[in-house]
Amino acid sequence: MAGDGSDQRALQYEQTLMYGRYTQELGVYAKEEAARLRESGQRRSVSDRSRTLDLLEYDKGRCAKCRICTVRCQKFLISRVGEDWIFLILLGLLMALVSWVVDFCIAICLQAQKWMYGGLDSNVFLQYLAWVTYPVVLITFSAGFTQILAPQAVGSGIPEMKTILRGVVLKEYLTFKTFVAKVIGLTCALGSGMPLGKEGPFVHIASLCAALLSKFMSLFGGIYEEPWTKNESRNIEMLAAACAVGVGCCFAAPIGGVLFSIEVTSTFFAVRNYWRGFFAATFSAFIFRVLAVWNRDEETITALFKTRFRLDFPFDLQELPAFAVIGIASGFGGALFVYLNRLIVQFIRKQKAINRFLMKKRLLYPALVTLLVSTLTFPPGFGQFMAGKLTQKESLVTLLDNRTWAKQGIAEEFDYIGHSQAWKHPQVNVFVTLVLFIVMKFWMSALATTIPVPCGAFMPVFVIGAAFGRLVGESMAAWFPDGINTDGTIYPIVPGGYAVVGAAALSGAVTHTVSTAVIVFELTGQISHILPVMIAVILANAVAQSLQPSLYDSIIRIKKLPYLPELGWGHHEKYNIRVEDIMVRDVRYITLNCCYRDLHNVLLTGHLKTLALVESAESMILLGSIERAQLQSLLSQQLGRPRRLEYIRERALAEKKRMSVVSNPGSEDGSQRVSQEVRFQISTEESTFSPVRPVPQKPLKPALKRSSVVERPTEIPTSPHDNSGIALKNLFCASPDAEGLEEPPPSFKSFSGDDGDVEDDMTIREIAEWEEMQLDEQVNFNNCKIDPAPFQLVERTSLHKTHTIFSLLGLDHAYVTSIGRLIGVVSLKELRKAIEGSVTVKGVKVRPPLASFRDSGTSSSENEATELHKLWDRHKSMSLPREHTPSESDEKSQ
Amino acid sequence: MAGDGSDQRALQYEQTLMYGRYTQELGVYAKEEAARLRESGQRRSVSDRSRTLDLLEYDKGRCAKCRICTVRCQKFLISRVGEDWIFLILLGLLMALVSWVVDFCIAICLQAQKWMYGGLDSNVFLQYLAWVTYPVVLITFSAGFTQILAPQAVGSGIPEMKTILRGVVLKEYLTFKTFVAKVIGLTCALGSGMPLGKEGPFVHIASLCAALLSKFMSLFGGIYEEPWTKNESRNIEMLAAACAVGVGCCFAAPIGGVLFSIEVTSTFFAVRNYWRGFFAATFSAFIFRVLAVWNRDEETITALFKTRFRLDFPFDLQELPAFAVIGIASGFGGALFVYLNRLIVQFIRKQKAINRFLMKKRLLYPALVTLLVSTLTFPPGFGQFMAGKLTQKESLVTLLDNRTWAKQGIAEEFDYIGHSQAWKHPQVNVFVTLVLFIVMKFWMSALATTIPVPCGAFMPVFVIGAAFGRLVGESMAAWFPDGINTDGTIYPIVPGGYAVVGAAALSGAVTHTVSTAVIVFELTGQISHILPVMIAVILANAVAQSLQPSLYDSIIRIKKLPYLPELGWGHHEKYNIRVEDIMVRDVRYITLNCCYRDLHNVLLTGHLKTLALVESAESMILLGSIERAQLQSLLSQQLGRPRRLEYIRERALAEKKRMSVVSNPGSEDGSQRVSQEVRFQISTEESTFSPVRPVPQKPLKPALKRSSVVERPTEIPTSPHDNSGIALKNLFCASPDAEGLEEPPPSFKSFSGDDGDVEDDMTIREIAEWEEMQLDEQVNFNNCKIDPAPFQLVERTSLHKTHTIFSLLGLDHAYVTSIGRLIGVVSLKELRKAIEGSVTVKGVKVRPPLASFRDSGTSSSENEATELHKLWDRHKSMSLPREHTPSESDEKSQ
Repeated sequence: MAGDGSDQRALQYEQTLMYGRYTQELGVYAKEEAARLRESGQRRSVSDRSRTLDLLEYDKGRCAKCRICTVRCQKFLISRVGEDWIFLILLGLLMALVSWVVDFCIAICLQAQKWMYGGLDSNVFLQYLAWVTYPVVLITFSAGFTQILAPQAVGSGIPEMKTILRGVVLKEYLTFKTFVAKVIGLTCALGSGMPLGKEGPFVHIASLCAALLSKFMSLFGGIYEEPWTKNESRNIEMLAAACAVGVGCCFAAPIGGVLFSIEVTSTFFAVRNYWRGFFAATFSAFIFRVLAVWNRDEETITALFKTRFRLDFPFDLQELPAFAVIGIASGFGGALFVYLNRLIVQFIRKQKAINRFLMKKRLLYPALVTLLVSTLTFPPGFGQFMAGKLTQKESLVTLLDNRTWAKQGIAEEFDYIGHSQAWKHPQVNVFVTLVLFIVMKFWMSALATTIPVPCGAFMPVFVIGAAFGRLVGESMAAWFPDGINTDGTIYPIVPGGYAVVGAAALSGAVTHTVSTAVIVFELTGQISHILPVMIAVILANAVAQSLQPSLYDSIIRIKKLPYLPELGWGHHEKYNIRVEDIMVRDVRYITLNCCYRDLHNVLLTGHLKTLALVESAESMILLGSIERAQLQSLLSQQLGRPRRLEYIRERALAEKKRMSVVSNPGSEDGSQRVSQEVRFQISTEESTFSPVRPVPQKPLKPALKRSSVVERPTEIPTSPHDNSGIALKNLFCASPDAEGLEEPPPSFKSFSGDDGDVEDDMTIREIAEWEEMQLDEQVNFNNCKIDPAPFQLVERTSLHKTHTIFSLLGLDHAYVTSIGRLIGVVSLKELRKAIEGSVTVKGVKVRPPLASFRDSGTSSSENEATELHKLWDRHKSMSLPREHTPSESDEKSQ
Repeated sequence: MAGDGSDQRALQYEQTLMYGRYTQELGVYAKEEAARLRESGQRRSVSDRSRTLDLLEYDKGRCAKCRICTVRCQKFLISRVGEDWIFLILLGLLMALVSWVVDFCIAICLQAQKWMYGGLDSNVFLQYLAWVTYPVVLITFSAGFTQILAPQAVGSGIPEMKTILRGVVLKEYLTFKTFVAKVIGLTCALGSGMPLGKEGPFVHIASLCAALLSKFMSLFGGIYEEPWTKNESRNIEMLAAACAVGVGCCFAAPIGGVLFSIEVTSTFFAVRNYWRGFFAATFSAFIFRVLAVWNRDEETITALFKTRFRLDFPFDLQELPAFAVIGIASGFGGALFVYLNRLIVQFIRKQKAINRFLMKKRLLYPALVTLLVSTLTFPPGFGQFMAGKLTQKESLVTLLDNRTWAKQGIAEEFDYIGHSQAWKHPQVNVFVTLVLFIVMKFWMSALATTIPVPCGAFMPVFVIGAAFGRLVGESMAAWFPDGINTDGTIYPIVPGGYAVVGAAALSGAVTHTVSTAVIVFELTGQISHILPVMIAVILANAVAQSLQPSLYDSIIRIKKLPYLPELGWGHHEKYNIRVEDIMVRDVRYITLNCCYRDLHNVLLTGHLKTLALVESAESMILLGSIERAQLQSLLSQQLGRPRRLEYIRERALAEKKRMSVVSNPGSEDGSQRVSQEVRFQISTEESTFSPVRPVPQKPLKPALKRSSVVERPTEIPTSPHDNSGIALKNLFCASPDAEGLEEPPPSFKSFSGDDGDVEDDMTIREIAEWEEMQLDEQVNFNNCKIDPAPFQLVERTSLHKTHTIFSLLGLDHAYVTSIGRLIGVVSLKELRKAIEGSVTVKGVKVRPPLASFRDSGTSSSENEATELHKLWDRHKSMSLPREHTPSESDEKSQ
């Protein structure tokens, strides 16, 4: 069993290695880190401001006006720096440079391989060794480097961006380390010549760039110093623009980039962000292409894979069925690709024997896969039948060629010049070459994208699609050598056009996007095939979406990222589920009049990012929510060294007083407590009753009674529940015992750790006593940031409405209130469970416990009204005993 | 003064005539109409289902299986009919047909004008008469026809669609009448040759089509019969797709159509609707172009305004500054256009003398404008200097020509063949022609779009932009006759490319969209100028957006449509405004235990679409919201004839009983009332106290006391408020007097109107008495649809959050609750006021009354906590007197 456990752990590790996996702990850590950063940032801004003021004061004597002018200019410049458009320009510039440099390095890597391979043409074995070793080394280096520096850089990055843009904080995915790992890892991975793509990683790299640039620009002030709530939404907008830049500078396709990034990352898109994406992506694409011109690669700015199809008669109406066939077949192909990719990952994960072996040498899996793929593409070997010596880019250029390969009659028209030679095999038909290319590349790409290096799948899929389109086009050209149009003028069929259609259709099917059509137009610089492309892409999407999730959603599921799945249409049962069926009734909360001990306990037992603040455990009326970090700082202030030193000073003073006058012990402590209580403007109820895990219904009524007992102590006989005070105290004392006392929480450790001071003459025992005393004090929330309007839902809100609100507002959790009383909390997790329960398991509808009785009623309207009354009755009995209490007590007093 | 009043009214009318104006009454009427339709639809669906069941029962004897099979097939077909994609295909097909037919008719109209003009070339005066009369007649007919049939069809329709997609119901804009008026009006208006566009109206027409198609398909069942909440969101999605279809089939530009419609109509866009737009727009564009091929206008499917620029070297990098200049100038031009358009409308509205004159003959304004414009374009007159004889389409084709006009040296290269001749004037330079064309068309278009006919401004602006681009391009070509590139190969400048850039930039500036770039690519079929176009469009947008609202937003303001303006970034003061500052504290509500009289009064005094349902006037705890229509039906059920006849029958029965046995009068009535009360599961409090206009704070405490009085009548001395029961009754009796008694409300009139029945032997007085009696009964909400979770906000929600939630969820209003108690309501109106108050008046910040004190505090966090306590104190004193009441009463009882 122990071996099994370590196996399990090893498997877990392997999974992280394979795909990286989101863990809650990391997220929480990141959040706290973020809070720390934010606070330090705010502190700095204050000091900056005071510095400016100092400057003004200091220089008043000399040439004050001049100085003021300078300061103003500086201020103006600084405020300008914070403007969106400067940020976007910088982002675009940076990404264009990164993209160009990466492309340049990849080109050099590929050339080096070719040179090695070409130089060793005397010996086939040496050639093979060179052909194979080079990519294996590069991929292994890439995998190792990424693994060591930042495992988050593995994979495409689009699933993570989707999750981040959804509002979930995955801060560890946006660090400088990740940036370095991703850029270098990607360059090496693509330089190896494996069928991997650049697009997905570039979306991630652009987001990393934006996050880092944002941090960098916050040094200069401006918008970046503003309250974090605003800054957070601004950051999300900037990240959305960055995604567009990523695609835009990768393909020099600004419009397609914006649309693709919207489709791939957003659920609801704010149209006001539209221009940001366009602006940054256009600028980026422009610089990217200008760099090519500047480097003398191109004479002027043109498309990346420029085609030269004729403009007058791009295609005939009668060719449309062939385009439709490409679309439908691509749809099936896309779904198959996603399925195959998932299958490989799951297979590798399941095979324990393989895993144990691979785990030992972590880099073995990438090396083995690379070896297999590069062996198969070895040009003198099997590679000769599948144009193995062409790089991805060269393949695409040849596939989009506007000449027809299969035309037999006119030999002089097609000489297989340049790279196109690779497709021509002396013994084998070009059709066989194409089919082999498609089949081999298909599984190779699906396999290669599971390697734990920074890589995407868009480009390989794009090339496969182009090859498939070419195949259909060549077949059509062979079938109708004179073209289809019978009106006299002969317009032959252009197989290159079919390749364009196929590329857009297959990549659209795999990613579930329509905007690949636009990317294709921008990549080729020709829009003449717009209608065939659109038809094929839409058909491919229709087929693929009904069969499989998109590649990115599939990876999100594999990685178990905290993402909210889409709510499909036409699933009636979901309208029957209400929030009350899925909410967590056991809410962690703090009360307005709780003591620090309660705070401590709540912080110890739960890991929630925000905690609900209620009026009291009896009324449960929701007042707001407080962040965990705020509470932690409250607690550390209360138990921190400065306070303790102050206490020591006060004690010494009191000691002195006692020396001089007759003392009355305890008054000091009492007055302190009174002054503490004065800070609370609501302190009528003195109960310290605040259970960590409240039983939702039972304690309400007795608790209420007890509170009235405090006010009228003589009238009502003490109920048995009144003893609960001591019992609960015991419970509280017990709970830290069970979890925390043996090993005090880190925050406390640090306070008792640095005690080696001169003035600090307290023993550890005294400190513990003092801390115990401090913990019994009431919490002072005055210096605490409270969100006064956390998101609330009513318990009868439908699942559909909840889902919409969560996705629209990017919520992480929402409190469920009933007549102002906190009765539960719904987080993404519950919502996801509820949706997946009712959506993915189609046959076996996982029904929530309360949904069934609603089906029995025939007329929904009548039902609703009755239920409303029932609901109301329940609340009355539960929550409004106040109205009944007086009459009860009156009866007793009479 | 009376004359002034009628003037005012006349002016109002004229404004409606000029632009159509949204009135609240119409909206309310439409909503009620919609509710009626919905109900009847539901009734029909139920009857359909029962019919099917009947059929099954009836035919069981014969060949039951066969029948069941048929029914199932029918069901399957019917369910298929409800599928989205069938709807979208039908919509696309229909719109393509409409677009093609409209284009065809417009072409015939324009040809007829040309033919008339050409046939009369012997006499210039006759020629002038023909040239001028033709458009005047057409425009006048269009204006008159639209005015008579459906004034809502006037104008572009995009502002209205923007408002409707925002969630505001403008049902009168989506009727069959409007459809007919819009299509015929548009055809005539465009057939006149005035500088008007087809795009905006087509967005409206497509939406009309979708709405009508949706209604039509609901006859077949399927999704269209489902609960209205779902159907409503579905309708909005379909309308969004329809907008895309409108643009798509107008320009044969599916991608640009989708993007343009998103930019123009949405604030937040649900990405899951993306495919709908693409699907429908592609299908529509496809059919639209296929119709052209079928009609032998084209040989195959190509772009609408196909260009033939060279592919190899579309433009040089050094030309980019010129493109940037076009962009910036277009930005200023676009802002000027919007300003000019608004100025003309406001000028016409203000001039009372003109108005009085124009008002008398309503069609005079269109006729005068048309006369002016067509006089100026008369080809032998001033028109010869501005290519006046070209239609809009011809102008655009010539402007996008890939030949250079200004090149002097090579005469044979440019012969001014075809329509291009129009630009060549023997005496005048082509530059002068172009400048005159731009200047004249600019104000003509701005003027023409104010004519009350169905028309858009996109196409005229597009043409002006193309002319401006051409002007810059020709200047560049004249300046650099050999091109700019110095690398040996001579690539001359292509002024047509500049025209493309100019067209995209100016139309983008006027509409504040970036997607005009995509439309341009799809219109011309060439994407080679992507970077210049993108740069120019973005610059134009940047300039125009900082100067003026978009044309559509400008019209929304002129028409005073209920639209929520955008919240700009960087306006700090808005984060200081809370919902409590802007909410309406005087909420109309009904209580759970109110009587029909209260319902009646509430319905009489307010015009709100939904009413809040609270537990009682004392607690104000929000239970849900009820639609006005529901309440009306409740009231009419209570006072309706069937109930009265039943009462008569019962009375007759009682009479009979009284004849036979000794009677105890009143018991009948009493038992009825008891049974009435049994329906209420909550009826502990018997107070009928439910003021229509509650003073928010005062009545709470006394009212509470009074309710406790009911339960303990002996203990507490009666407070002066106890007499309020009678006083309030008087108030209630008085309020209908003031407003409604002299003229009973229409719903009641109808009940007392059709009394001429045989059995109905009650006198009018008896009826009035009976009605009074009925009105005193408690309302039975059992058959009433109650929304159990209306949208709630906390009073401290910031304006920013409120705005986001309103725009995201398309809310019309939200209730503001504090600890479950209804304390106010915020509707679009208040929100708009708050935003406009703090945004548009930049210098004079209109500050809400409560926002100021929040600025005084230095540390916001401290402030918040203290305020929370304050808030809490206030609530305690306000809302929790229940806890204190017992102690008070106890003191008294002791």
